[in-house]
Amino acid sequence: MNHFTRIVLVNPSHPGNIGAAARAIKNMGFHEMALVKPRRALSHEAYARAAGADDILDNALLFDDLAAALADCQLCFGSSARAPVDPHAQHDPRSAASLISQLDPNLKVALVFGREHAGLTNDELRLCQYHIQIPCNPEFSSLNLGAAVQLICYEVHVALTTPTTPINIDFDYAPQADLTRYYQHLEETLSQLNFLKQDNPRQLIPKLQRIYQRAQLSTSEVHLLRGILTAVQKKI
Amino acid sequence: MNHFTRIVLVNPSHPGNIGAAARAIKNMGFHEMALVKPRRALSHEAYARAAGADDILDNALLFDDLAAALADCQLCFGSSARAPVDPHAQHDPRSAASLISQLDPNLKVALVFGREHAGLTNDELRLCQYHIQIPCNPEFSSLNLGAAVQLICYEVHVALTTPTTPINIDFDYAPQADLTRYYQHLEETLSQLNFLKQDNPRQLIPKLQRIYQRAQLSTSEVHLLRGILTAVQKKI
Repeated sequence: MNHFTRIVLVNPSHPGNIGAAARAIKNMGFHEMALVKPRRALSHEAYARAAGADDILDNALLFDDLAAALADCQLCFGSSARAPVDPHAQHDPRSAASLISQLDPNLKVALVFGREHAGLTNDELRLCQYHIQIPCNPEFSSLNLGAAVQLICYEVHVALTTPTTPINIDFDYAPQADLTRYYQHLEETLSQLNFLKQDNPRQLIPKLQRIYQRAQLSTSEVHLLRGILTAVQKKI
Repeated sequence: MNHFTRIVLVNPSHPGNIGAAARAIKNMGFHEMALVKPRRALSHEAYARAAGADDILDNALLFDDLAAALADCQLCFGSSARAPVDPHAQHDPRSAASLISQLDPNLKVALVFGREHAGLTNDELRLCQYHIQIPCNPEFSSLNLGAAVQLICYEVHVALTTPTTPINIDFDYAPQADLTRYYQHLEETLSQLNFLKQDNPRQLIPKLQRIYQRAQLSTSEVHLLRGILTAVQKKI
């Protein structure tokens, strides 16, 4: 993990949004929040919405302007829903995250978010080397501040923690021989039930095989399914 | 865009979170929200947090249980922070989104989110073919409900709007209501066979459900499987 990512909120109005941002920051494994002239003090609402990320709020750095908040950062990404100041500097969250994940981990990165209603000014965006625009519905494009922090921190988290160990290895896939025996058992039982008619098999077994092949059965599941067939045969 | 994605919130407690979810849904270009027994009525707070996504709230579908909310959906993805019920069915948001983007756009997909503090129950997760786990800080892993909706809808939005060559499998996925009836029929038949013992059910039905959920049955396959059950019942 990149421990040198600072999430900067410029002039946030609502303590609830600051709390939501703190929660998102901690959820995604980051630690450092900086506030540039928040409009209101951190209230009960901020802590309620932080839902346990109190340490992020308690340790938040306070600055009087964005330049000061970015002074010790090497690379700054400003989030903006507006048309790009410089198309060259433009990233979507995923390509920004990919870029960050390739940086020297000793560099300090800032992710900068603007005011709830007005975003970042052009002057503030110019303090950032890169701009991030979140892809969204062009007819309803203003995301909640906490949601924007959540999304971009998530992308950076995913990029920093990829490659991950693959899930899903701990599954005892049945060997083909077990499956073959199961399909034979199924065919035998359906014949005894007279559901499968030897003179008119109607592609019945291949159809059933397709279902179970797709399910990729485990050894114990094959065992269970064959137990049912045996129970049916006993009734017959 | 896939216009047939339904976002389902199960038993949400806080109207503010419902509003935040509505905003996130509209931001990401989706329309349809379903609420399963919300604890409280949509209040001023819900509309305040929706920040203009009033249409999503006004048109929200209301259901008494999750099965009813999913009855006309073909593929259901349940979001869960817990260890997977079935590792086989497990996705991260990106791979789930990729899968959704490759489906026939006429299929109805449900994205299901659980209660703020307790998530979805195992029974509810079993109603979903796939489970989505959001990668996060393992020591602080509970995301805000609106934030989880935001993240997963964002991934699906990105996947749907990224031009790819669709695979577009021509497959008539069975609606959930058909699956529910099949599982009931299976349970009934296994009871009559005395393979399922009411005093000692041994997780039998959930185990079988996992197999068939993974197989993603078509309407005609459900029909075929129920035909077999009927043949067994006749013998009994």
